[in-house]
Amino acid sequence: MDSNIFSVVLGKAYRLINHGPTVLVSARHDGVDNVMAAAWACALDYAPPKLTVVLDKSAKTRELVEKSGRFVIQVPTVAQLKLTHELGTHSLASEPDKLKRAGAELFEIDEHDQPFVAGCSAWLACKLIPEPHNQKTYDLFIGEIVGAWSDSRVFKNGHWQFEKTDPALRSLHYIAGGHFYAIGESLSISDSSQVILE
Amino acid sequence: MDSNIFSVVLGKAYRLINHGPTVLVSARHDGVDNVMAAAWACALDYAPPKLTVVLDKSAKTRELVEKSGRFVIQVPTVAQLKLTHELGTHSLASEPDKLKRAGAELFEIDEHDQPFVAGCSAWLACKLIPEPHNQKTYDLFIGEIVGAWSDSRVFKNGHWQFEKTDPALRSLHYIAGGHFYAIGESLSISDSSQVILE
Repeated sequence: MDSNIFSVVLGKAYRLINHGPTVLVSARHDGVDNVMAAAWACALDYAPPKLTVVLDKSAKTRELVEKSGRFVIQVPTVAQLKLTHELGTHSLASEPDKLKRAGAELFEIDEHDQPFVAGCSAWLACKLIPEPHNQKTYDLFIGEIVGAWSDSRVFKNGHWQFEKTDPALRSLHYIAGGHFYAIGESLSISDSSQVILE
Repeated sequence: MDSNIFSVVLGKAYRLINHGPTVLVSARHDGVDNVMAAAWACALDYAPPKLTVVLDKSAKTRELVEKSGRFVIQVPTVAQLKLTHELGTHSLASEPDKLKRAGAELFEIDEHDQPFVAGCSAWLACKLIPEPHNQKTYDLFIGEIVGAWSDSRVFKNGHWQFEKTDPALRSLHYIAGGHFYAIGESLSISDSSQVILE
């Protein structure tokens, strides 16, 4: 594991996706690993931390999630723009070498038998909370976050540091048709409710 | 209604929140209007367009949504940073003049009996799809988007134009503790998969 990666306390795990980044969803079942991009992932609860993610019925990753009951949500970076787009527009079902062709590099984290995507800024290991009605009707999956990690160069002490680090580590926010935005300027409200441009 | 506001075709309504902005949720019931901020809102489907939003049991707006079966999700701007934070940290339950004190200005849109917040960049009028189990267990609400509008200075022809307009119109992305980010740089993947920094 990269020496910059440290665990994040579960009570602050929601902060890793609170700003609405496009994410990568990875899962493993029966020796098969896959990764897809998803713009529709969202925090759901603080404690125990939970999140939602929409997984289309055509996605091979969805099948791995349903069979294994586990998945990883990770936050890709500006440096991974092309990788993210490729993982979101190609399917393992029709391209068995999808991950290799996209250049996705996987790594392991002890005690979590899941495929983690190298080079991301944050990782959330999730346990599926089965909700068959939501899954069938809305393609909506709920996960409890059971482990969280960040690249400490860009998220540390419970806070994103986008404005203080390499711009290549900023998060991606997808719109449509290959068009993304990077996260931008930091803005804070002080205790006295004054706006601070950081 | 502001002369810059135009309707958005429902097939592209998801794009108004696809990049994960913090939103304002407004609702009206029995003569009472309220607005709250929510970081946990997410697109759910393209057609008919749907979205999810998490509304805590303590939120007065939740009660208005449950009773009226309708709500509006709107995208506040950098110019509304202080307004957004105040609407997210004060409750109508304990402060009857919350909206006035925060400086929230409401307007109407024909055929939609809902409170729309002036100065935002986009508005999604939603009809609640009742899902009692989700609402009770997860505070998770699903809405079908029945009307969509944008400020054409910042979203037109189905695309956000953040990089081409007044920076005060950028979207807000909340983390925690009064700390937000604005949306940033535009990034595109061309058909030949080259990365274009716009």
